[in-house]
Formats: sequence, C-alpha cells, structure tokens
Amino acid sequence: MMEPNSLCGQRNISMLMDLYELTMTNGFYLLGKGAEKTVYDMFYRRNPDNGGFTIFAGLEQIIEFIECFHFTDDNIDYLRSLGLFAEEFLSFLRNFRFTGDIYAFPEGTVSYPDEPLVTVIGPLIEAQIIETAMLSQLNHQSLIATKANRIVRAAQGREVADMGARRAHNADAAIYGARAAYIGGVNATATVISGEMFGIPVTGTMAHSWIMAFESEYEAFKSYAEIYGSRSVFLVDTYNTLESGVPNAIRVYHDILQPRGEHLHGIRIDSGDIASLSKKARKMLDDAGMTDCLIVASNSLDEGTIGSIISQGGCIDIFGVGERLITAKSDSTFGGVYKLTAVDRDGAWEPKIKISDNVTKITNPGLKSIYRVYDSEGLSVGELITHHSDTMPDLSKLECVSPDKPWQHISLEGCHLRPLQVKVIEKGKRILPKTPLSDIRDYVKRQLTTEVRPEEQRFYNPDTHPVLMSRDYYDMKVALLRKIEGETRRHSQS
Amino acid sequence: MMEPNSLCGQRNISMLMDLYELTMTNGFYLLGKGAEKTVYDMFYRRNPDNGGFTIFAGLEQIIEFIECFHFTDDNIDYLRSLGLFAEEFLSFLRNFRFTGDIYAFPEGTVSYPDEPLVTVIGPLIEAQIIETAMLSQLNHQSLIATKANRIVRAAQGREVADMGARRAHNADAAIYGARAAYIGGVNATATVISGEMFGIPVTGTMAHSWIMAFESEYEAFKSYAEIYGSRSVFLVDTYNTLESGVPNAIRVYHDILQPRGEHLHGIRIDSGDIASLSKKARKMLDDAGMTDCLIVASNSLDEGTIGSIISQGGCIDIFGVGERLITAKSDSTFGGVYKLTAVDRDGAWEPKIKISDNVTKITNPGLKSIYRVYDSEGLSVGELITHHSDTMPDLSKLECVSPDKPWQHISLEGCHLRPLQVKVIEKGKRILPKTPLSDIRDYVKRQLTTEVRPEEQRFYNPDTHPVLMSRDYYDMKVALLRKIEGETRRHSQS
Repeated sequence: MMEPNSLCGQRNISMLMDLYELTMTNGFYLLGKGAEKTVYDMFYRRNPDNGGFTIFAGLEQIIEFIECFHFTDDNIDYLRSLGLFAEEFLSFLRNFRFTGDIYAFPEGTVSYPDEPLVTVIGPLIEAQIIETAMLSQLNHQSLIATKANRIVRAAQGREVADMGARRAHNADAAIYGARAAYIGGVNATATVISGEMFGIPVTGTMAHSWIMAFESEYEAFKSYAEIYGSRSVFLVDTYNTLESGVPNAIRVYHDILQPRGEHLHGIRIDSGDIASLSKKARKMLDDAGMTDCLIVASNSLDEGTIGSIISQGGCIDIFGVGERLITAKSDSTFGGVYKLTAVDRDGAWEPKIKISDNVTKITNPGLKSIYRVYDSEGLSVGELITHHSDTMPDLSKLECVSPDKPWQHISLEGCHLRPLQVKVIEKGKRILPKTPLSDIRDYVKRQLTTEVRPEEQRFYNPDTHPVLMSRDYYDMKVALLRKIEGETRRHSQS
Repeated sequence: MMEPNSLCGQRNISMLMDLYELTMTNGFYLLGKGAEKTVYDMFYRRNPDNGGFTIFAGLEQIIEFIECFHFTDDNIDYLRSLGLFAEEFLSFLRNFRFTGDIYAFPEGTVSYPDEPLVTVIGPLIEAQIIETAMLSQLNHQSLIATKANRIVRAAQGREVADMGARRAHNADAAIYGARAAYIGGVNATATVISGEMFGIPVTGTMAHSWIMAFESEYEAFKSYAEIYGSRSVFLVDTYNTLESGVPNAIRVYHDILQPRGEHLHGIRIDSGDIASLSKKARKMLDDAGMTDCLIVASNSLDEGTIGSIISQGGCIDIFGVGERLITAKSDSTFGGVYKLTAVDRDGAWEPKIKISDNVTKITNPGLKSIYRVYDSEGLSVGELITHHSDTMPDLSKLECVSPDKPWQHISLEGCHLRPLQVKVIEKGKRILPKTPLSDIRDYVKRQLTTEVRPEEQRFYNPDTHPVLMSRDYYDMKVALLRKIEGETRRHSQS
C-alpha cells in the first residue's frame, strides 16, 4: 500500500504550528529552560454533538509526523526573516528532532472528556513545539470518526459509504476524513486517494453528467450496463425518478443485463423525498423481478435523516453520506487541547494546573495513569484517574471519588481495570507497530457491541460516563488549587 | 516566497477524486466519447449562513493543480488492482494532461448563487475527471473567506487574527484556511506555515504553558518581557484575570519595560466574560498609564459574539478567532457543485440541463456569459446571464427577466455591465498571471466598500441580489425544460 501523501513522505508540514510555539520555545531556549523535562496532556472537554463518547482517531499520522519532524534551511530562512528569533535558537531548530516519549490511547478507543488521550513526556521545547500539528490531526480525525459512527449506528446495519470529498475542508480533510470515517464504521469511501493510501474499499455510482452526456436516459443506462454489467448502479433522478429513472433502469435490466445472465446491482436516488420514493421504487423493482437490486440514497443525509427514513419504512440498502459526514456539519469543531501538566523538579514531577475563570477549563495536573473500569459483566462503567504508577491499583483497597460529588466515597471492588494508555514513541522512535486500519475499525465495533453501555450510545441526552479519581489524586488536585488561590490572593493584596 | 506544500510541488493529489469520475471516464473512453467537447460549470446554490453573498476563493490553487495534474505508475497500478478499468484506459490515464480552457471569476469576487464561478471547456474526460479536486478546494476556501469576511465586518475596523489551525480539519484546512481568511479580511494568522507559503503576516501571543513553566505568573511575564520587550503580549487569565493577570502585567511593565523605555504591546484575555473583563482591565491599564497597551480577546469568538461584545462596550483592540472561523462552525458546508451544461454537436453547443424533483437543483444550461450590473452610481444591483458572447450586450436593446417573475420585463438602460469571467487556463496552460494575495484581499475590501449594497451586507435576512437572464436565454431554458418534460412523459407512457 502506497502512502503518497504521508505526512512525512512527499511533504514536510513541520511548520504547521502557531507562532507562539516558536516565540515561547525561543524564550525557553534563551532562558536555559528548553531541556527541562515536562509532561503535556492532550484531552478534550465535550463530546461532539453532546454525544456519549468520542472515537479517538489520527494517532498513526501523529506517530509518522513526530518521527519525521524537522526544519529545512528554507524554513529557517523564513523564520529568520521574521526578526523574532535568536540565531542560536535557529541553529538549534535546524538540527531539531523529537527525542521524548509519547503515550496514547490505542487508536479507535471509545473516549471521554477530561482524560489524557495522549501524554507527551519530553524536554519543554520539544513537547511544546508539536502542539498544533498534533491537535489539528487528532481533532479532525476524532471528530469525523465520531460523526461517522453516529451515522453508522443510525443506519442499523445498512451499509454507509463516505461520498464527502468534494465538500471536505480541502484535500487533507477528504483524505484523512475518509480514513477516520472508515474507523468510525462506514463500509467504503468514494475517495480514490484514500483507497490507495489506506486500503479502504472504494465505491461509487455515476453522476448526472453521465446521463446528460447521452441523448436519453435509457441510452445512458444501456451504455453503462454494457460496460459494467452486474456492477452497474444507475442514478435515477436526473429527469424524474419514478416516471423516467426507475422505468428506464428496469428496461435496461430486461434489455441488456438479464439476457446476459447479469443483474442490476442498484439504483441511486439523490433528490426528492427519499422515504416515499424509495418505497415506490422498491415496489417497481420487485414487481419487475429485481428483488436483488439495491437502492442507494444520497442527498445531505446524516444520522437524523437516516433514522427518520428508516422509521418511515424507507427501503434503502446503502446510504451515501457526503457533506454532513465529512464536515461534521451538526458540530464541526472538536475542541481537543494540549496542556502542560507537570515539570521535572530535581527528579520529581511537580504537577502544574491551569485555573480559569471558566471552571470547565481547569486542567487535571500531574503525570497520571488512566484506567477503564469494567463491571463483573464486562460493561465499561467508568474511567479512573490516579497518580502515575506502573502497577495496577489494588481495587480492594482503593478509595475513589467523583470530582463533582467529592463527599461520596466510591468503591470499585468487584470491578476490573484496563490501563488505557500505551507507549507509542520512545526516545523519539516509534515502538508501537502500525495497526492495520481494519483492526482499528473492528476494535471500535467490538467496544460498542460488548462494552459501552447502550445508555451512553443514545444520540440525544446520553447517560454520562463517570470519570473517577483516586482519593489521593483528587486530594492533590484540590490542594494545588487551594495553594494557587492563596498565592493569587496574596499577589493581589501586595 | 516558498510554497513547500503547493498542490503540485511536493505532493501529487491527482488521485483526489470520486471513484465515479473514473468509472464514468473509463466508460466515455470505451464508447469513443472521451474527446467530445463539453462545458461544465461550477456554481453553488445558497450563501453560507444564509448571508447575502460569498467571497470566491481558491482559484490560484486550482490553476496550480490543473497544470500539474497527472497520474504516476503507482497510481495506475492501484487503479488496475480495482479490476474496474480497461487497460487502454489506464494507458490513456498514464499520459493524461488537461488540455482544455478554464474561465473563472477573479479570486475574491463577491459572488451569488446559481452563477458559474468557474466554467471548464474541454474534452468530456478531462472536464469530468477534475471535479472533486476542484470542488474541495473552491468549496473550502470560499467558505472560509466568506466566514472570515463576516467576522471582519462584525469587528468594525478592529483587528482580527486567525488562530484556528489546531481546530482546523487537518493540515490543508489550516494552511489554506489561513489564506482564505486573509482574503476575507483578517489582518494576520498565527499559522506559521501559511505565513511562509503565502506571505501572510504572522502573529501570536503566549500559551498558558508559558505561564505554567515558571514558578509564578509574575516571573513568567518578566522573563518574556526581558526577551521580547515592546513586542510582548501577556496572557492574563491563567490564574485570575483581574486579581492576578492584569496586576502582574502592570508590575512587569513598571519593573522591566518602562525603565528600558519600552511599552507593553498588549494583554490577552482567553476566558471569562470578555465584555466586562475587558472594560475593567482597560481601566486598570489606563490608570497605570498604559493607554497604548492593547487588549486581545479570544475564546470561541465569531461574528455574533464579537458584535455583542462591541455593542456592550467591550474594550477589545484585536480579536483572535479560532475554531468558529477555521471550521465555519455556524454553517460548515459550502455546497459548490460542478455540472455538465453543454456538449458539442457538430460544432455547435447543445445545452444540457439537469431537472430534479427538487426545483432548486435544476441547472442553468448552455455556455453562458455572466455580467455584473451596476447602476449609475456604481452600485452593484444584479447579475445578468446571457447566451455566451464575446461582445457586450447593448443595454438599450436588451430585454431581461427575473426567473422567479418571468412575466415582468426588466430594462437595464442606464446601467453598465462588467463581464465576470476571465480566461485563466488556455489549452491546459495558465494564462492568468498569479495575483498577489494582498491584491485579492484589497479587491474584496474595495467591492464591499464601494459596490455591494449595505442591504446585502446584513448578517441576518439580507436583501437578495437579483440574478437576471436575458429574455432569449430564459426562453431557451424554458423550452429545454418543456422538451424534457414531454420526453419523460412519452417514456413513461411507452
């Protein structure tokens, strides 16, 4: 499988960063702080569409990016032209490589707000400078994987195909959006380059321009059938779906395909009322003996429309989903952030916290361990954040709290834990082998089938997945908040 | 200026297409129709956010793409592996270059629904195969330029900076989104790679991680000021904006900057109630003699929030706008389409039309000329679509209609016309010189200042810009619709 557009293959996007990453790291460098060991967490605060969870995606591209991250002479010349940076710092950048460690959730993990999906441990400069490139990749793919998964669940076992490239936010959004949509569960993509790069099954029917390039719709279908035989899918709404398109499809089946022992793979309806048109078209096809001819629907579909069409008995076998999938139209921003959470002080991690006038923007300090909590039936019932440890907590002794009800004591006895983060990069080099895309997709499906409670899978007002903290971790966080409050008060009084 | 990520520079994205473009063109090739001369139009049906107009953007990247469009051996091998294409067709693709002509609106043109922003004239295969790559680029950049322009107008002369890269839909969306936002009128971008590629001014402040990497906020500001002097902008909301951030900024100004004859360029507020915090911060700064210290605001801003903050007297000099700009959150899909409108029949253009069960999806057939209509005061009062002609219509003789009120006769006497399309590619080669990005940006501004009626510039329920047709063009379209209706009826009766 070729990757002509691999992030580090044909092009170098190391300069995809916010200017402040460079002004800050130039500062750290000049202050002799650049090599201080730090911990940064990538996390998010709210699930897209206020859903119950997020499908974490984009990790593979981040690993590739980090391994190849470097600045060219041209990059350095441009940075010099800005007149902001010390010449020693520019020399440092010219030889820059990432040398830290990265831990992350396996790609495709069902994820929840406020837990570190990625943790970067490395020198201050290195950890800071990769912020924007990391976020734009993870934010994008997680957004689209999550949206795709909603659409796939709405389709209740019917096939879903990504047809969104033309409405994507430029080439990468189409290319990596198709990858993310496949992770989320779509069956195929119309985007050829994504098929080539990632081995995703490609699919497609015909455009109105095919029909219009012929003297008549019948002629257009006939010509197509003569070339593609049983693989043909006819677009039936160019002139009139029920009065022209479907009857012509049936005629061409009888005139061309049936005599050759072939069948018509399907018809596609791209306008009008999909629910009622599909029911009438189904009846016409069945009456013509074409019970195996599939009906494909397209036209601004999403999980809401698909759910309605199915509940009204629409006879759709395959949903072609475009703009509302590839731009995540109902909630187009995934707000993943990347925050400093600890700094090395004489060999120990000093936890760092960001307070805020918005309480939801307060971060979880320190180097942490994250576990998924399963009940005795194997259902995922919560997350657990503890101080970092290489050994699993003893649940018979562990005391937990829910941060929004810290007065309650929660016991996890009888549950079992799964550590969520795995080491993916060590000293700048990939140590996690590349996971086949189909394995990531299967992992998503498996979690939703066997682990994630149905209550969390509702589209509207899903149940919350508790993110618990060990008592000692929670106490540390509160103590840190108190300390900073006190310092702030002293400052403002001084 | 370097273009490390030029569409045809470091990488080849010719395979960014929907599979049906290849199955159809394979069909056209096998049927001997591939060389038929055709006309395709790119147009859209609705302005983003139901605004009054769209800023057309992305043309430069399309020209670059078309000039370099080609398939590699690897691409052909992949296509062969799909088992869909004739070997002769694959050989044809291996040597494929675009040889047609392309006409387009100048980049930055204020545009309206249902007019051809781009017209491609060329062999059927060539015109068809570029569809998806063209649309994803033009749809994306036009969407972001239009959204940016709304935000810039809401800011009423205050500066606006694009800070959205981390929330963009992957790398290209950040890179080309910054370009489009600059066309739309933002003053600068935080995205370094876009500064490098397009010469856009880059800007930035500091992240919370800068503050948190020091023992105290005061220490963090002081260290920054010692390096960056009068260019410093302090992020003041890490602990508490009014009790810690602003007081520390003032102390550092007095302790470090003022003694060195320098000033503090600004402070940035990124959380809390921007309107009230900025007013209080402004007073604190002014009282400290820092009247020239700017206030930068960020945190999920868009044209709505910015308008509210200004109307409540918020003291903001620069708006840093991120996710809601770069993902066009309020309306994240730009629905540009690309439709066959004419086919050469023995040297004459036979107009083609797509009917639809949705009336709004009916296309404007044929090769057309598009003019902007100006009144005697130079205001743009409508568009005019006519049969294609190389000479301007004589307005004293021209009879027009508005397609939604065809019974009215409209005269344009006393108006003057500007042809909107210019030839950008001839026989596959660029003939339009590259327009400097700042010229495109100035062109946008000039149109909005001098030509576009204020009624069309309202954010909510703007007045409609009439798209008129010459009487003979309209009559041709109606005759074509009647003819197809009749044929469809005959088919369904047969």
